[in-house]
Amino acid sequence: MQPLAVSLGDPAGIGPELICEAWARREAERLPPFVVCGGAGVLRAAAAKRGLALEVIETNDLGSTTAVFQDGLPVIGSEDAVYLPGAPDEAGARLALASLEAGAALAVSGHAAGLVTGPIAKAELAKIGFEFPGQTEFVAAACGASAEDAVMMLAGPQLRTVPMTVHCALSEVPGRLSVELIRGRVAIVARSLRHDFGIANPRIAICGLNPHAGESGRMGREEIEMIAPAIAALREDGIDATGPHPADTLFASHLRPSYDVAIAMYHDQALVPLKALDFDEGVNVTLGLPVVRTSPDHGTAFGIAGTGKARANATIAAIRMASEMAARRAAA
Amino acid sequence: MQPLAVSLGDPAGIGPELICEAWARREAERLPPFVVCGGAGVLRAAAAKRGLALEVIETNDLGSTTAVFQDGLPVIGSEDAVYLPGAPDEAGARLALASLEAGAALAVSGHAAGLVTGPIAKAELAKIGFEFPGQTEFVAAACGASAEDAVMMLAGPQLRTVPMTVHCALSEVPGRLSVELIRGRVAIVARSLRHDFGIANPRIAICGLNPHAGESGRMGREEIEMIAPAIAALREDGIDATGPHPADTLFASHLRPSYDVAIAMYHDQALVPLKALDFDEGVNVTLGLPVVRTSPDHGTAFGIAGTGKARANATIAAIRMASEMAARRAAA
Repeated sequence: MQPLAVSLGDPAGIGPELICEAWARREAERLPPFVVCGGAGVLRAAAAKRGLALEVIETNDLGSTTAVFQDGLPVIGSEDAVYLPGAPDEAGARLALASLEAGAALAVSGHAAGLVTGPIAKAELAKIGFEFPGQTEFVAAACGASAEDAVMMLAGPQLRTVPMTVHCALSEVPGRLSVELIRGRVAIVARSLRHDFGIANPRIAICGLNPHAGESGRMGREEIEMIAPAIAALREDGIDATGPHPADTLFASHLRPSYDVAIAMYHDQALVPLKALDFDEGVNVTLGLPVVRTSPDHGTAFGIAGTGKARANATIAAIRMASEMAARRAAA
Repeated sequence: MQPLAVSLGDPAGIGPELICEAWARREAERLPPFVVCGGAGVLRAAAAKRGLALEVIETNDLGSTTAVFQDGLPVIGSEDAVYLPGAPDEAGARLALASLEAGAALAVSGHAAGLVTGPIAKAELAKIGFEFPGQTEFVAAACGASAEDAVMMLAGPQLRTVPMTVHCALSEVPGRLSVELIRGRVAIVARSLRHDFGIANPRIAICGLNPHAGESGRMGREEIEMIAPAIAALREDGIDATGPHPADTLFASHLRPSYDVAIAMYHDQALVPLKALDFDEGVNVTLGLPVVRTSPDHGTAFGIAGTGKARANATIAAIRMASEMAARRAAA
């Protein structure tokens, strides 16, 4: 298998040091070879600051990286910046964007087995003209796919969950939901759990929007008018979708083993339980695209960058998950 | 201190057996004396079904119950029904309502130190003309208070949380929020944490409504227009309120120790993390009323009533919490 491409994230955040930490733990964690797009100087400085013995191996030959990965962290491309942890600036934003673009290009062209993206600061990127709501939409565009085809799944040790709407005001959520949206996105989830995660018949539990899933229409009618019809259509298509389930009980420990993924109707319905259970181990996975893309589900954490406090668990989990997904696709 | 009054809940649900279980564990759990309002026959049958050795002591003399509590479960009042676990009916709903009315009357008159309510089925009670959204509003009315003065707090071993809106459609939430609502309800919470829970300067963390607390207005303006001004007003009143915090991170394990209560904007924002963390140990506490009232934060669970599967942790925690609150009020 080809190596994975890893984008740096904002160089002032915790992304670079966590890539170094993941590389340092490559043997204990049995991580596959990966290559970072740019930021060689940033990575050297971040490793030193974290007290990690790490050699950065700069190369323009992607094919050579697998062979050298045990000896050093391979970096491809010459974009770089000064390492200023906690102090984001325009030069850092430009490096973050260049790294993301290079990583996406490697994955789209098939030279890399998949893409793992480091955490960016959307506000910093917006200042240099980045117009995507997030990296997921950027990667979709790089694939020539529509943003609607890219479905964000959050996966932690105890829970996988997919929100049907993501970055919009709560007041806009009911208007954005529809039978078609739920049906289409859940079908993408079902397909990906089969092909990318090896779950033959994924059990998909779908949340209601309203308290107690609306209590038969007493508190909102979205369950009756949109969610239940979408579930019926999905079941006709042979997908094991159930619900609408009251969201407050669905994430309880005794119910979590009853499904492979929980479908939430909005951002916090998915993210609140994920982070309450597994704060810094969640992986953000993009489903439905021709390329494999994962990301640690945390931000740049400028406040603790360079202090050594940030934990690499999510980065390691994101690398491992991308590798497993890519292997399943390669074997298919 | 007087005994606590306990209402039976729907006799076809898990309420009666959990009261019996709590009584059976009175010594190990160091529970204070409590008396059940009605349902002597139901309780005897429920105890037998659960395999608990328990004597029901029927009495009309509340003053005598403390003395006999070690020997048997005191029941006051003669309302009763046939024990039909899992099969709710009108007679059961009438018993549940009579028990709730009697318990509330004992607490309001001061004969009982407080009220612990068993789980009811709102749909069953609605059939016999019960018009309150829930027991909280019923108890408020019994006190002669307005429903707005009664604030529902959910308390589990790992988290206390208070939703600002409760049983309404999600689409109605933004319209129901206001500076006045948040300011008024959080002030009640602050007062109760001081007086009922003995927390001298409660740290109150307030969630945003929108993803990432709106990201400075990019995803919704409720944080700017309502939540932040309410927090400013609360701080001027000397209350240690902070936020608006992004809800998805606020419930993470490393942040939970930073506050005494999390204020949520809607039902699932509060209940999803509570139940994900502590499914069957949550206590529903009514703050802001002249009487102490708690309840296990679970439903009737008709599906497992009479099977012995239901756990009594929340009932025990509700009894203990009511007793501690009543003791603090008595000492004030």
